[in-house]
Amino acid sequence: MGTIEQIVVKADWKDIVARKRRDQAEGIKAFLEKHGTKPHTWNIDICSLEHGALLEALTTGDVTAEHVTLAYINRAIESHKKTNCLTEILFDRALQRSRELDEHFRREGKPIGPLHGLPISLKDQFNVKGIDSTIGYVGRAYSPASEDAVLVTILTQLGAVIIAKTNVPQSIMMAETDNPLWGLTVNPNDPSFTPGGSSGGESALLACKGSMIGWGTDIGGSIRGPSSMMGLYGLKPSHGRLPYYNVTVSTEGQEHVPSVIGPMARSLYSLTEVTKAVIDSQPAVLDPRCIDLPWRSQVYEDILSRPLTVGVIWDDGVVRVHPPIRRALDDLAERLKAAGHEIISWDPVGHEEFIKIQDQYYTADGGEDIRREIAVGNEPFLPDVKALVERGAPISVYEYWQLNRQKLKCKKMYLDRWNNTRGQSGRKVDVLLAPVMPHPAVPHNSCRWVGYTKVWNFLDYSALSFPVTTVSKDIDVADPSYIPRNPNDEWNWNLYDPERMDGHPIGLQIIAGNLQEEKVLAAAKVFEELLCK
Amino acid sequence: MGTIEQIVVKADWKDIVARKRRDQAEGIKAFLEKHGTKPHTWNIDICSLEHGALLEALTTGDVTAEHVTLAYINRAIESHKKTNCLTEILFDRALQRSRELDEHFRREGKPIGPLHGLPISLKDQFNVKGIDSTIGYVGRAYSPASEDAVLVTILTQLGAVIIAKTNVPQSIMMAETDNPLWGLTVNPNDPSFTPGGSSGGESALLACKGSMIGWGTDIGGSIRGPSSMMGLYGLKPSHGRLPYYNVTVSTEGQEHVPSVIGPMARSLYSLTEVTKAVIDSQPAVLDPRCIDLPWRSQVYEDILSRPLTVGVIWDDGVVRVHPPIRRALDDLAERLKAAGHEIISWDPVGHEEFIKIQDQYYTADGGEDIRREIAVGNEPFLPDVKALVERGAPISVYEYWQLNRQKLKCKKMYLDRWNNTRGQSGRKVDVLLAPVMPHPAVPHNSCRWVGYTKVWNFLDYSALSFPVTTVSKDIDVADPSYIPRNPNDEWNWNLYDPERMDGHPIGLQIIAGNLQEEKVLAAAKVFEELLCK
Repeated sequence: MGTIEQIVVKADWKDIVARKRRDQAEGIKAFLEKHGTKPHTWNIDICSLEHGALLEALTTGDVTAEHVTLAYINRAIESHKKTNCLTEILFDRALQRSRELDEHFRREGKPIGPLHGLPISLKDQFNVKGIDSTIGYVGRAYSPASEDAVLVTILTQLGAVIIAKTNVPQSIMMAETDNPLWGLTVNPNDPSFTPGGSSGGESALLACKGSMIGWGTDIGGSIRGPSSMMGLYGLKPSHGRLPYYNVTVSTEGQEHVPSVIGPMARSLYSLTEVTKAVIDSQPAVLDPRCIDLPWRSQVYEDILSRPLTVGVIWDDGVVRVHPPIRRALDDLAERLKAAGHEIISWDPVGHEEFIKIQDQYYTADGGEDIRREIAVGNEPFLPDVKALVERGAPISVYEYWQLNRQKLKCKKMYLDRWNNTRGQSGRKVDVLLAPVMPHPAVPHNSCRWVGYTKVWNFLDYSALSFPVTTVSKDIDVADPSYIPRNPNDEWNWNLYDPERMDGHPIGLQIIAGNLQEEKVLAAAKVFEELLCK
Repeated sequence: MGTIEQIVVKADWKDIVARKRRDQAEGIKAFLEKHGTKPHTWNIDICSLEHGALLEALTTGDVTAEHVTLAYINRAIESHKKTNCLTEILFDRALQRSRELDEHFRREGKPIGPLHGLPISLKDQFNVKGIDSTIGYVGRAYSPASEDAVLVTILTQLGAVIIAKTNVPQSIMMAETDNPLWGLTVNPNDPSFTPGGSSGGESALLACKGSMIGWGTDIGGSIRGPSSMMGLYGLKPSHGRLPYYNVTVSTEGQEHVPSVIGPMARSLYSLTEVTKAVIDSQPAVLDPRCIDLPWRSQVYEDILSRPLTVGVIWDDGVVRVHPPIRRALDDLAERLKAAGHEIISWDPVGHEEFIKIQDQYYTADGGEDIRREIAVGNEPFLPDVKALVERGAPISVYEYWQLNRQKLKCKKMYLDRWNNTRGQSGRKVDVLLAPVMPHPAVPHNSCRWVGYTKVWNFLDYSALSFPVTTVSKDIDVADPSYIPRNPNDEWNWNLYDPERMDGHPIGLQIIAGNLQEEKVLAAAKVFEELLCK
């Protein structure tokens, strides 16, 4: 291509960016002009009500769905100004839906479903009919989805009100939230920090109370990492439990380390209720990849009812966690022991090997999928995306099949270990407790190690992140004698900055086997009650 | 390679073949010399007892497990002489196991498990520690398995006695049962006919009452086709329901049109009991690909309890079925209607397209997996295997991912159709009723169309074949005016030979959605009761 053509091309993608951003700004402006003052007339802070309290207010008629929607949209706009977290603005249709719900409530005297009137946001991958799912690519702008994602259909039936879509990284394969179309999303606690990625638009919005429940996706930690950095709860279910159909994704068709959808929220109650509600709605009827497996109350109740055996991963042997994370683990383990639970150390055998195999899946096509997407929009590569697609040549389908054989052996090895490891009680491990990221929120473009989360995608285990504590510059002092083990470890260790990180949230992770969503949610409840003591 | 080398190579593979066959003959001879006369001293024909009666005889002490094992081994040897159905001879360890079971029974006064003393055979893919799993390849001879397949572990715990392994085609990807190592397996009703494939060793053995229950695998019809040709019941479950771990297979790692394991038997009772017993044993604890989904009695009972809506596939629009198969469909549909069930015609929309996509998966590696296996043994290609590996060049991983996207759309289309199709009753279809093969048993190397079975592998639906009637040369007259639609249809139509096929079994197929094993087993019970009236 000659120089002139290049200039033309550059102008093109920039034009599309400008047009998309203008549309967004106008959507916000139109709302504010019409509704911007209303929230201030209410005598309760709707966005600070907890899930149960808000639902009660909605179902007793103390507030209308319209009021709640207006309040949350206002807060979402504030969040966006602070963090650049939104992409598509769905305010008009959200208000329309909320009025329908209010009408239903007046007519029938009862809510339409278990999520009646709850404001919900979606990572910009979930298709909403008539709206773009750009997934951060310029080339996908102005190509509106022809159908709702199955999740959107279900949430709408259950009474949820979808208010906006949220930002993602170019390619979605990054732990940062930035792309040439929508720009960088920043951490509301410190704009020089990332809110994590790839579900970083969600984490920023939810942390600002700009949405009640968000939905993200996770192929290596994209729900759990941002949740831990922003003090949220996030569930990464096993593949097949929650409906992925009509969720737009990068490297679609790569189904061996599958991306999954999952909820994110400020409370465990929200996380549990929305997961249960979606599973109870029988997603397998609408999504051919969903498994016909109902919500198992007995599995959930069993975990609540007895002493647990908890395997703790203190360190994955590759990248040591920052001091506040180790403190969070130590403290929770002590509380668990004091409450009569059993703690055993869980050796992360195989994790490093798993990650080596796993990384080959992501770029098995030699980056062709991502290259094509970027070529459609003629947009620039972000440096980390460029590095990803240049990681290596494509492998053959035969080699790809051999990767599956390796993966299967790894999964069997881990399953056997889980079966054969016993605590002093003689019981098997119920759940694992582990770090999420090896650090709290960090400056932009400095997340490098997602090994604590991605192994559970490789194994397809259920995993959940939950907030435990915050960084304290006074308590969480780094060991000055620590000698890093490798470049990633050194990078991470050098990121630790207790002064700047002071007060930032610290999350931990709960892991159970394949399709054990009830177990990780119940264990989180047990743990949370101990943390409140 | 020069001429001398070629001769050396050829001598090599033939030497291995000769040695394997000699080992087999010696195993049989040793058994006959030691135990060959014992069965004749019994006053009941053990191999003709039905599952329930045999189990009762075993659990009341009327017969010992050793007696049953001896009787079945004798019958298996007779079957083998007639059909060449066996590969690995496990008689000694079977007798050893049967004596342990008898010892247990004497000591404890009760059976060890629900399959106590039942003689079972395995297609030569299921690993048995210390025994080859050649899967029909010379190059895999004398490479004994280091571990039992998960199924073998479970069956053994449940009390089953594994007496032998059975023959398969080279590559396993054929509907005929032939390979250079073990040779051709023939139909016991007519040695010029095939017993089907790829689980043709099993179908021949079971039809001769040489085993009580057999285990096959199915990636395109390999359980259902042989079952229908030999008058047996065969279950092809959905992927993840029954344990595949440590089952040796061709094109391993190709998991998008997954091969599955399933039982084959002479009675529906056997099929149901063994399926339920394996599922009840929680295979997901041992097999990382199994889903933690228990046996659902309520799904099974529901189908037994009410009028069903049955969609009938009379013709797939590509290859018309032979007259006796159409008669079997017509007759059963009439009986169903008379019994108050609802019959609707189910249009096979999409099936032809599905098959085109599906076939690309099997050879996505350009045949490399099969070529490598054959190169190891330096054995000759069977002509159909040669044709398979030469079907086309390998595709790229990116293209492979696009196939997955296409497949997902197909699955969604079919699921939506299932949801949106209603009978006059307003109810959804419970199950489909369809042909298995477009013909009864046919001469060797003449099966060409497995479209009636393979679509359910593509969709990953649960499917079951069951015997309905036999060919009658007097009733099943071909329409002389029929003009074939295409070369496959013409080929099939020309195969029909009522004189030679007279008396051969005709099976039909029951299909339900993904992971609906309980449904197809229960529907088979409903249908079978109507057929007995």
